[in-house]
Amino acid sequence: MSIDLTAASITEVVQKTFEDAEDERVKELLVRLVQHLHDFTREVRLTGEEWFKVMDFLERVGKTCTPTRQEFVLLSDILGLSVLVDLIHHPGGGSATDSTLLGPFYVEGRPTAKNGSDISGEVDGPPLFFNGQVLDPDGNPVAGAKVDTWHSDGEGLYDVQMPDKLHGQLAMRALLTTDDEGRFWYRSVAPRYYPVPTDGPCGEILRAANRSPMRPEHVHFWLHAEGFEPLITMLVRRDDPYVERDAVFGVRRSLVVDFVEHDAGETAPDGTCMDESFQAVEGTFVLARKER
Amino acid sequence: MSIDLTAASITEVVQKTFEDAEDERVKELLVRLVQHLHDFTREVRLTGEEWFKVMDFLERVGKTCTPTRQEFVLLSDILGLSVLVDLIHHPGGGSATDSTLLGPFYVEGRPTAKNGSDISGEVDGPPLFFNGQVLDPDGNPVAGAKVDTWHSDGEGLYDVQMPDKLHGQLAMRALLTTDDEGRFWYRSVAPRYYPVPTDGPCGEILRAANRSPMRPEHVHFWLHAEGFEPLITMLVRRDDPYVERDAVFGVRRSLVVDFVEHDAGETAPDGTCMDESFQAVEGTFVLARKER
Repeated sequence: MSIDLTAASITEVVQKTFEDAEDERVKELLVRLVQHLHDFTREVRLTGEEWFKVMDFLERVGKTCTPTRQEFVLLSDILGLSVLVDLIHHPGGGSATDSTLLGPFYVEGRPTAKNGSDISGEVDGPPLFFNGQVLDPDGNPVAGAKVDTWHSDGEGLYDVQMPDKLHGQLAMRALLTTDDEGRFWYRSVAPRYYPVPTDGPCGEILRAANRSPMRPEHVHFWLHAEGFEPLITMLVRRDDPYVERDAVFGVRRSLVVDFVEHDAGETAPDGTCMDESFQAVEGTFVLARKER
Repeated sequence: MSIDLTAASITEVVQKTFEDAEDERVKELLVRLVQHLHDFTREVRLTGEEWFKVMDFLERVGKTCTPTRQEFVLLSDILGLSVLVDLIHHPGGGSATDSTLLGPFYVEGRPTAKNGSDISGEVDGPPLFFNGQVLDPDGNPVAGAKVDTWHSDGEGLYDVQMPDKLHGQLAMRALLTTDDEGRFWYRSVAPRYYPVPTDGPCGEILRAANRSPMRPEHVHFWLHAEGFEPLITMLVRRDDPYVERDAVFGVRRSLVVDFVEHDAGETAPDGTCMDESFQAVEGTFVLARKER
């Protein structure tokens, strides 16, 4: 390797040190990463003082991570990287429902639930009624599809963010199964817009940029069915004040739907005459066939 | 902001969210960073699985950092970023001595020492005699220059890496002052080549690339003098097996010098007739005048 280094020549010198990588993909990723990191550093003429601040920032991002808080994922989210990865592989525009980012609040140990049941757990709030249908690209119902759903409470908090209040119980999440018509439905409490965590290093970026930390009101879905591609998506409330400025760029136009407000005395989708106001949301999900 | 996102259009959408940053430099850095991170992600078509591995890797780098171990600095070092930042602002080629990276082993609380003293502390090993001179760009001596020097022991370990053995004492480092002829000199123990730490996440990259973790034998210097630019540099042993493949790209040709081996019975630079073999190293450092 050369020891006659210049700010221009060092990139190739570093890239050559990856020549002997056994995995061709690892080699490609490292070579291209070094190209872009070096190009960035040259373009902005990063100073030693700025470099030091970057090192300190990244260390603090790492220290902020816990089993229930993924600050590097949040950093990727607010820089639009997480959604970009999804858009590259799921550009949309086909017959299938658009996907979007998973977010940090999916939990593997969620309970299963029967259609029509109340999945709100011990959480109070105005009722939400969700009715969904899962279809194949030809419009036929997909029976037996597994549908994960999860959402926040009326203060924008997920169950895992209030373990003390809920005594560690999971709430506002469930795994449902579609019936013969591809339908699934449940009752819960209405979610609300909420801020991503701003008390860590990512909050410094949002404040420096005078950027809103808010995500618009939404409900998450993760669908699996035999013979179809899995679908990670969410539905977003159309009249939410933050619908066009989601802090993590997760909103796609096709996923914006009406979260309909009903007054007390009206009839809920499950036939109950409600003595309080409630929300009703409907969604249709079209799965892409798995390529053989 | 647009919610009609594509893998191509999202970059500009994200960049526009930095428009309201009050600090123009912060805005420039974020906008260019997003450009290169997104370009990289698109070029390699990063998969969701790979993205997850990157998130996990970065979190583990953060968790590896301690007050005496800077794994993000090491990551920057092995990707050539640290040296690039130095090369951009100190391209060399002028009359002044080339600079290079500081490395992670500089310690602020180092002892001061008189010229000619033994700075090896409690460490055993073959003696090293260092004789240096500090000059201005016209070749005149710089008297009263402050010279920090630090190096490893004969097994490639710095004092801070063996606090138990040294009872927490600093060793093999000192702050010296040049005399009227710009000279400084000291006795210590001979350093040796050594590996950067490979038991953390950065070691995974080096192993994946079949890259050597070794740094060639060297002595660090950090010089300050009134009216001159500070100089962070090091001198590297010419016949070291790793001189042309430093794991962190810190070697510049102009900084490679002879670490001369002398047999027992020969006379040391300080006039002592030595009863054991020893090393002698000389270095001249030319400081750049501070721009007014």
